[in-house]
Amino acid sequence: MTTSPDTAADRLQPRYAFLGPSGTFSEAALLAMPRSADAVLVPEPTVTAALDGVRAGEYQAALVPIENSVEGSVSATLDELGAGNPLVITDEIALPVRFALMARPGTDLAAVKSVATHPHAEAQCRGWLADRLPGVHAIPAASTAAAAAALLEDPAPYDAAIAQALAAQRYGLDILADNIADNDDASTRFVLVQRPGVLPQPSGADKTTLMLFMRADHSGALLEILTEFAVRGINLTRIESRPTKKVLGDYYFSIDLEGHVLDARVGEALMGLRRVCAHIRFLGSYPRHDCREPHLRPGVSDADYADAMEWLAQIRDGDTV
Amino acid sequence: MTTSPDTAADRLQPRYAFLGPSGTFSEAALLAMPRSADAVLVPEPTVTAALDGVRAGEYQAALVPIENSVEGSVSATLDELGAGNPLVITDEIALPVRFALMARPGTDLAAVKSVATHPHAEAQCRGWLADRLPGVHAIPAASTAAAAAALLEDPAPYDAAIAQALAAQRYGLDILADNIADNDDASTRFVLVQRPGVLPQPSGADKTTLMLFMRADHSGALLEILTEFAVRGINLTRIESRPTKKVLGDYYFSIDLEGHVLDARVGEALMGLRRVCAHIRFLGSYPRHDCREPHLRPGVSDADYADAMEWLAQIRDGDTV
Amino acid sequence: MTTSPDTAADRLQPRYAFLGPSGTFSEAALLAMPRSADAVLVPEPTVTAALDGVRAGEYQAALVPIENSVEGSVSATLDELGAGNPLVITDEIALPVRFALMARPGTDLAAVKSVATHPHAEAQCRGWLADRLPGVHAIPAASTAAAAAALLEDPAPYDAAIAQALAAQRYGLDILADNIADNDDASTRFVLVQRPGVLPQPSGADKTTLMLFMRADHSGALLEILTEFAVRGINLTRIESRPTKKVLGDYYFSIDLEGHVLDARVGEALMGLRRVCAHIRFLGSYPRHDCREPHLRPGVSDADYADAMEWLAQIRDGDTV
Amino acid sequence: MTTSPDTAADRLQPRYAFLGPSGTFSEAALLAMPRSADAVLVPEPTVTAALDGVRAGEYQAALVPIENSVEGSVSATLDELGAGNPLVITDEIALPVRFALMARPGTDLAAVKSVATHPHAEAQCRGWLADRLPGVHAIPAASTAAAAAALLEDPAPYDAAIAQALAAQRYGLDILADNIADNDDASTRFVLVQRPGVLPQPSGADKTTLMLFMRADHSGALLEILTEFAVRGINLTRIESRPTKKVLGDYYFSIDLEGHVLDARVGEALMGLRRVCAHIRFLGSYPRHDCREPHLRPGVSDADYADAMEWLAQIRDGDTV
Repeated sequence: MTTSPDTAADRLQPRYAFLGPSGTFSEAALLAMPRSADAVLVPEPTVTAALDGVRAGEYQAALVPIENSVEGSVSATLDELGAGNPLVITDEIALPVRFALMARPGTDLAAVKSVATHPHAEAQCRGWLADRLPGVHAIPAASTAAAAAALLEDPAPYDAAIAQALAAQRYGLDILADNIADNDDASTRFVLVQRPGVLPQPSGADKTTLMLFMRADHSGALLEILTEFAVRGINLTRIESRPTKKVLGDYYFSIDLEGHVLDARVGEALMGLRRVCAHIRFLGSYPRHDCREPHLRPGVSDADYADAMEWLAQIRDGDTV
Repeated sequence: MTTSPDTAADRLQPRYAFLGPSGTFSEAALLAMPRSADAVLVPEPTVTAALDGVRAGEYQAALVPIENSVEGSVSATLDELGAGNPLVITDEIALPVRFALMARPGTDLAAVKSVATHPHAEAQCRGWLADRLPGVHAIPAASTAAAAAALLEDPAPYDAAIAQALAAQRYGLDILADNIADNDDASTRFVLVQRPGVLPQPSGADKTTLMLFMRADHSGALLEILTEFAVRGINLTRIESRPTKKVLGDYYFSIDLEGHVLDARVGEALMGLRRVCAHIRFLGSYPRHDCREPHLRPGVSDADYADAMEWLAQIRDGDTV
Repeated sequence: MTTSPDTAADRLQPRYAFLGPSGTFSEAALLAMPRSADAVLVPEPTVTAALDGVRAGEYQAALVPIENSVEGSVSATLDELGAGNPLVITDEIALPVRFALMARPGTDLAAVKSVATHPHAEAQCRGWLADRLPGVHAIPAASTAAAAAALLEDPAPYDAAIAQALAAQRYGLDILADNIADNDDASTRFVLVQRPGVLPQPSGADKTTLMLFMRADHSGALLEILTEFAVRGINLTRIESRPTKKVLGDYYFSIDLEGHVLDARVGEALMGLRRVCAHIRFLGSYPRHDCREPHLRPGVSDADYADAMEWLAQIRDGDTV
Repeated sequence: MTTSPDTAADRLQPRYAFLGPSGTFSEAALLAMPRSADAVLVPEPTVTAALDGVRAGEYQAALVPIENSVEGSVSATLDELGAGNPLVITDEIALPVRFALMARPGTDLAAVKSVATHPHAEAQCRGWLADRLPGVHAIPAASTAAAAAALLEDPAPYDAAIAQALAAQRYGLDILADNIADNDDASTRFVLVQRPGVLPQPSGADKTTLMLFMRADHSGALLEILTEFAVRGINLTRIESRPTKKVLGDYYFSIDLEGHVLDARVGEALMGLRRVCAHIRFLGSYPRHDCREPHLRPGVSDADYADAMEWLAQIRDGDTV
């Protein structure tokens, strides 16, 4: 893990980790968050390292990718958030995915015979490569930024790399072609992860992330869980089953719901899940990157809950209305 | 309505109404309740009169029939509880239905040519009548006790009456045949009704009675209501649709559920219904006459609710576990 | 039971029973049905007698009341349809309830001291009576028409009767006041009942009536039943629990649903119920009196079912699309 | 894609692809299937290549990994099955995951300074590596078998590879340590994929795989889908949301259910889904690798369906029972 000496400046400046190396989409996303302006941004080689650094108190927060519109969820992030000491998501950001072909200065596109990048990026640029660089040799790299960084080795292990434009800037490379992804609409969502203790105030357009573990041998459990949400008018924006890593076919559910744990309906649903599930891991309530407010059905606003609670209190006091 | 002078004794003695006249099943049921030992018991001619007497403060309580195992619910009672000033059920009792054929002293069974009783009672004794008094003339009466009482008129309008044994005792009649109902297992349930302000403590084997009015044009509303109960593990012991008396096909639901309004799961379900229904009328939580405790599924006890509430409070404080 | 000699004319003319005596709302409703024009209309003293006459083949059909907007369902009809040999509803009609005060010709309203009628009618005219005939003595009768008929006895047992205008016509009485019900909007629904073998063709605006008996000890059964309907987009227009007449708290459900048994979605729902319920009694599919067509959600029309069936057949043939 | 000349022998022998290169878990799994005994087994470099070869008719079938107990679903397989021309799963097999450390003959464990393997394998052996080869340099490879194969290059790019024992056999390597995974219970499930037209007969212990695409803007759609299964007593063994690769947050559901498309309850559920979903892709019914038969609740067997269908036919014929 990258560390730096504990100077007075450090103590004043928050330290944020991101999934490195330098020049990744994660770094670009972190730079796009206003809060990073005053912070020291530190690359970590893996999601695990970034999150463990937060757990250990070396970072105030870490920004890691969690979902890609083409590849789906980032399993490593989902699984790491659920293992070890508790962490919570306190913010999120989404960035359009934009790939560029880059090489050492002076390289001619026509001369490119080998291109390195992460296999996912290669998959997303396959059409462009076949069209513009037919017969090019594609070399897998651990990440797009790593592919770009290795071009600085001497000799360079390949002619060019596919990465985001930020990587060219970080490593002093030339961009031979920009926007080369076959699908223009791809985007990646990143989450800012912190130690518990910080709960962002409700913004009116929030999400809450949960890990739900079922009780053994409880068929119909997912229907039961969804009913706990439905009965309180809560919409889910994401639901995924993930293996518990014990035996084949044993899953937990990773869920994003619309609303904040301080919302009355979300609080009641969580209590309901707590009573139904074997275990729940709360992974944070935070403002949505798209600021979209939920369309609530009648009867599930905080005011409706407050009214119902007052009415029940009257009945319990014997003041039937 | 029967009234009596307001003497000092009266002020000391509670006054309980029952569905009269003297000698009804209601009176027999009220006598079977320990609390009636010290009370003045007053017959009222109709359920409406008995309940209005409670509303007006003339009675501490009224005992009225609410359900018969053969005839079904007593519509008058269901509807009256839902109209006018609020009332609550605070106790219930069930009595086996036992019919006797009675007549003025000295009457011979063979000489009985006409028998009066309430049409429901006639229906329940039809087999016996056809077998033992073939060709007898059956005369409808407003109640079984009224049929018995009228035998004291001079001349008696008919030869015999079918009523409960208590009526024979009250009116000085002879029982010509006892246990003449075709179905031995019939029973009637009665409820003790009071003004709000009294909420019996949970006994562990309680029922709660509700009237639920749907929002207009809300198809699927009943499914929604039942889900509010199911999600909290609450079992219903009775559910009936009753006309709202406005237009054909407009109903409310009359419901008995297992549990007490002070139970956490019942309270949460009531709050849920409050948010879903156009209107709810709470008609009381009271001990079951059969003392049967509910079989709760895991996760819905008061302790489970308390645990979930504490867990949620921790999360909301930022102390994620 | 009223019978008549089996003449040639009888054999040509259908015979329809109605809930008598002559002059009832049932007779008025039957007269309002076009099919009664060529039929012999026969009053029967009870719903049981009318339906038993159909069972015995004495009548092609019987018209009996099943639901009143003020009093609710007619228990006798619901229960009789479910007992004995099978019967089916083949048509329905609804009639506004309109009460008139009637007396022997020459009676003066001011001279009326006693009024007979069915207790339900008395309840519905109570306001008018209190206002216009304060202190009048109300006498219960087995039916409104019977109250009117008895005025022809000599001497008349009371001064006037409350019944429908048809009764005055049938018994040669004068109408002293018409439209005396406190609630103008009251109406009664009647069903035409026949032996099985006749299934009216779907009209596009149909209802189907069912009796559903649950398996013992199956809590949550009603939720299960409603789900069978909901999953096929079927709306219920009436649902009632009725006692099975065995023990207190043992019910069956009487249900009217929107749709015809020949509709694909209704057929599938019925098969689902058949597998879930202990017993089902099919009581007919017939055109709605109000001709209201159901609002179907997408995916539940006969065309949608046919498409899905064809698609499944392809898959089962191995022709995956 | 690996191809071979179309000889007479080829025409007699079925050709099966597997996810290569030679020595993969997929090859080991294919060898474990009795049907592979007479077949030519051909490695393909990617899941896409293997499945496209089946689509093109070059292979009768392909065996590809679909789920790992530690890493979760194999996204490439899920996504490839859903794209392009239809394919169906006709069989499955599960294999315990067992990793060995292997090197060129004569290598000493103590001399190993660099180890190549697939990142997933590295993750699963991380504990063993830290314990037995502290400070070893881990090099990512495209697959475990590729890591092993590259040891034959001259010079070898690293000292050792982590792969399955079969790879050592295929490439003439020595196993330095076997069973080095940190978690002994890990296993991988593989599916045999063919062109449509083959539907295995129901075995009594089957699974059916589906891709379900929701209609746009249909919140609550998953609850609706699960209800279609629940109402027919069908249990799911796997449910996953996967991105549709259009926009962030747009998913389809990949589902395995207990039962065969020829089972009545499964057929009815599929027709229900067909009417609810925007699109369904049927991916086959096939015998479960673990031969576990479903626990059916009462009322959902083929016999129950046949009985209900006969009963409905009687009612529709007018023969009400």
